[in-house]
Amino acid sequence: MKNCSLIIKGKYVLTMDDKMSVFNDGVVAVDDDEIIAIGEKEILEKYKSEKIIDAGNSIIMPGLINTHTHAAMAYFRGLADDLPLPVWLEKHIWPAEAKYVNKNFVKKASALACLEMIKSGVTCFNDMYFFEQETASVASRIGMRALIGEVILDFHTPSCKTPKEALKKTEEMILKYKDSELISVAVAPHSIYTCSEENLSKSKELADKYSINLHIHISETEKENKDCLRDNEKSPVKYLDELGILNNKTIAAHSIWLDDEDIEIYKNRQVKISHCPISNMKLASGIMNFKKMRESGLVISLGTDGAASNNTLDLFSEMRACALLHKVNNLNPEIASATEIVKAATINGAKILGMDDKIGSLEIGKKADIITVNLNKPHLTPIYNPCSHLVYAVNLADVENVIVNGKLIMQNREVLGLDEDRILEEACKFKRN
Amino acid sequence: MKNCSLIIKGKYVLTMDDKMSVFNDGVVAVDDDEIIAIGEKEILEKYKSEKIIDAGNSIIMPGLINTHTHAAMAYFRGLADDLPLPVWLEKHIWPAEAKYVNKNFVKKASALACLEMIKSGVTCFNDMYFFEQETASVASRIGMRALIGEVILDFHTPSCKTPKEALKKTEEMILKYKDSELISVAVAPHSIYTCSEENLSKSKELADKYSINLHIHISETEKENKDCLRDNEKSPVKYLDELGILNNKTIAAHSIWLDDEDIEIYKNRQVKISHCPISNMKLASGIMNFKKMRESGLVISLGTDGAASNNTLDLFSEMRACALLHKVNNLNPEIASATEIVKAATINGAKILGMDDKIGSLEIGKKADIITVNLNKPHLTPIYNPCSHLVYAVNLADVENVIVNGKLIMQNREVLGLDEDRILEEACKFKRN
Repeated sequence: MKNCSLIIKGKYVLTMDDKMSVFNDGVVAVDDDEIIAIGEKEILEKYKSEKIIDAGNSIIMPGLINTHTHAAMAYFRGLADDLPLPVWLEKHIWPAEAKYVNKNFVKKASALACLEMIKSGVTCFNDMYFFEQETASVASRIGMRALIGEVILDFHTPSCKTPKEALKKTEEMILKYKDSELISVAVAPHSIYTCSEENLSKSKELADKYSINLHIHISETEKENKDCLRDNEKSPVKYLDELGILNNKTIAAHSIWLDDEDIEIYKNRQVKISHCPISNMKLASGIMNFKKMRESGLVISLGTDGAASNNTLDLFSEMRACALLHKVNNLNPEIASATEIVKAATINGAKILGMDDKIGSLEIGKKADIITVNLNKPHLTPIYNPCSHLVYAVNLADVENVIVNGKLIMQNREVLGLDEDRILEEACKFKRN
Repeated sequence: MKNCSLIIKGKYVLTMDDKMSVFNDGVVAVDDDEIIAIGEKEILEKYKSEKIIDAGNSIIMPGLINTHTHAAMAYFRGLADDLPLPVWLEKHIWPAEAKYVNKNFVKKASALACLEMIKSGVTCFNDMYFFEQETASVASRIGMRALIGEVILDFHTPSCKTPKEALKKTEEMILKYKDSELISVAVAPHSIYTCSEENLSKSKELADKYSINLHIHISETEKENKDCLRDNEKSPVKYLDELGILNNKTIAAHSIWLDDEDIEIYKNRQVKISHCPISNMKLASGIMNFKKMRESGLVISLGTDGAASNNTLDLFSEMRACALLHKVNNLNPEIASATEIVKAATINGAKILGMDDKIGSLEIGKKADIITVNLNKPHLTPIYNPCSHLVYAVNLADVENVIVNGKLIMQNREVLGLDEDRILEEACKFKRN
């Protein structure tokens, strides 16, 4: 019998490996940060541990990966709803950001967002906002995995007077976190309508210099496309491609208003997609061409966007919305199957962030980012197929335990080492001001 | 100080009355089955009770009303997904029903469904299935409000050899429950494609005889419309109208494939609509014309449909799906506002079932069907607008207490007088067979 640091067992182990292996009455053995064995009860004959999580009637699966969010916007959750995007943004969100967003705001609001994400089974997120050093610190302290991007804009922002300053901050973070186990850094130019060609190109240079991701919003609204066609006589995707921005390290959020040629460019450049169906539905931005993009072989992952346009950071809701939307939009219930959607929230998320060698599935040698979902609930009984339940029935409160990098960070829904009451109280206090 | 049987207090009392009154730090006083006072802390100076629920940082609101479901199908939750409707129905659901559905099945599966609905804040549901006497008994025993309809079909069903027998059973239930506080009965012919003109007319006669509701599926699929046009040279709505079936006691589930004339007929006959967006999306049946129907002044409520096509009985998910779907479908975020959607799940549900004199809002003289939603959660913090949270952020697990007809049936998420473990175990046992 070999010793290991943690053993987790439960009704179903959903690996999300290439074969979509599922182990009934399954066991995962973890040593330090790594999965060292996975299978059925035979694992218990080979490994022992002082720490055993018996999750009972549960699904044990990879942690969910949120590939596009603005964590600190959690403080603006529900600030304004049911409004046209320009009104929402210009009359509500931007003024609130100008008034409230500072280092301390981002620190506190990121703690709320991380708490919410852990409690809904998210173990890794891809962020873009201001004062991202604060978000990185919070995630790192709590023990979450994150890809961090200080947003780059042409104009003065709450965190940076100039885009040059934002690029400088980004490079500082790249160097600071180059050996971090949990934190990676992306270059994050906001979009084509808020970044000049020069700033887009400088962003790409920086990403190339360190061979890291570039995270950007692309074709989120019809207006973005129309304006680009008017000003540049080409679509945003073509515009970015001709600037040399797009490659297999580009993480493109939204990507709604793409035509066939744009999809072909994405395919040729191996652009990575973060699909945000709830935000796109709520703001009525449009419906991404999921069917065509899948048929083109593109890899699609899921993002919640910020809580101001969602209004949660819950990937279970996102999975369900994604499956339901594309079925009805194509009048075809076979599109966006449960299995495909669970992939989008796990292994595809890892692929999109360039982390699929480390996370996204439960396999020997991968990092132990693992969640357990408690099935002892009326709305999850009976169960015929774990993926079906994850997409069509599970909600965030069913997540029971969360492990990141081999470390238990939530046990029986209690987030360890965090003062949940204080984080909520701080958020309420902010709102009262 | 007057004595009353129950006092509930909490952060927000959302009345859903005509003025959409909200009381901050609100109080509701209940005596026996009735709301006798509602307001702010002044209520506490006038009323006292031995039983006080201090819900703290909560929303206190009317219980949710599920206006179209097939409760006992909870045992088929996730049995088959991501399939075209004919394959799903003919290869999976119908064979499973033929094999398994009997009196005992309906009794047990209805208990699971009622448990699930209570735990997600539903206090009243409108059901259509086989052996509905069992569903009525379960709901009544648990203390839920229900409108019960034994499904009428032209052919032999698990519960009735002939439609005549189903009509007879319906009439027996009408007489049995005529003085019931909780159980009402509807006549429930399944649809135009499963009921002859004769059976539709006999159903209507029975509904008229007792002046009760008639509950039917209308225009759920494009096929239903095409077949009706082929066979009768008119739409299902026109066909039913010419048969004299439609009036203000008709509860029409789905109503997706309606043209302008059909909507006009609904309006003239004051037909009541149960909109089931999740089921319609999941089966890719189509998108109901929410915008046009609302503009025509039609009252729209929400139904989950059965758990086999949803896969839960959760009206919070239904509210969110409804708001999101119609915004993106119309490329207009102002459609289906949070307030309008909460109405659909509460007061409109009561209107649709002809119960708005009794339930659907918190008002003096109405029956006390009340739920509390706990806001002390990361995904519900901070809060700017209660309706926004209910639609875009709350999930079923946030429901804390449930009161029906003045009686507390769930306290701190424990359903009183029900053996939850046994109900779940029975469901698992069924699935193993």
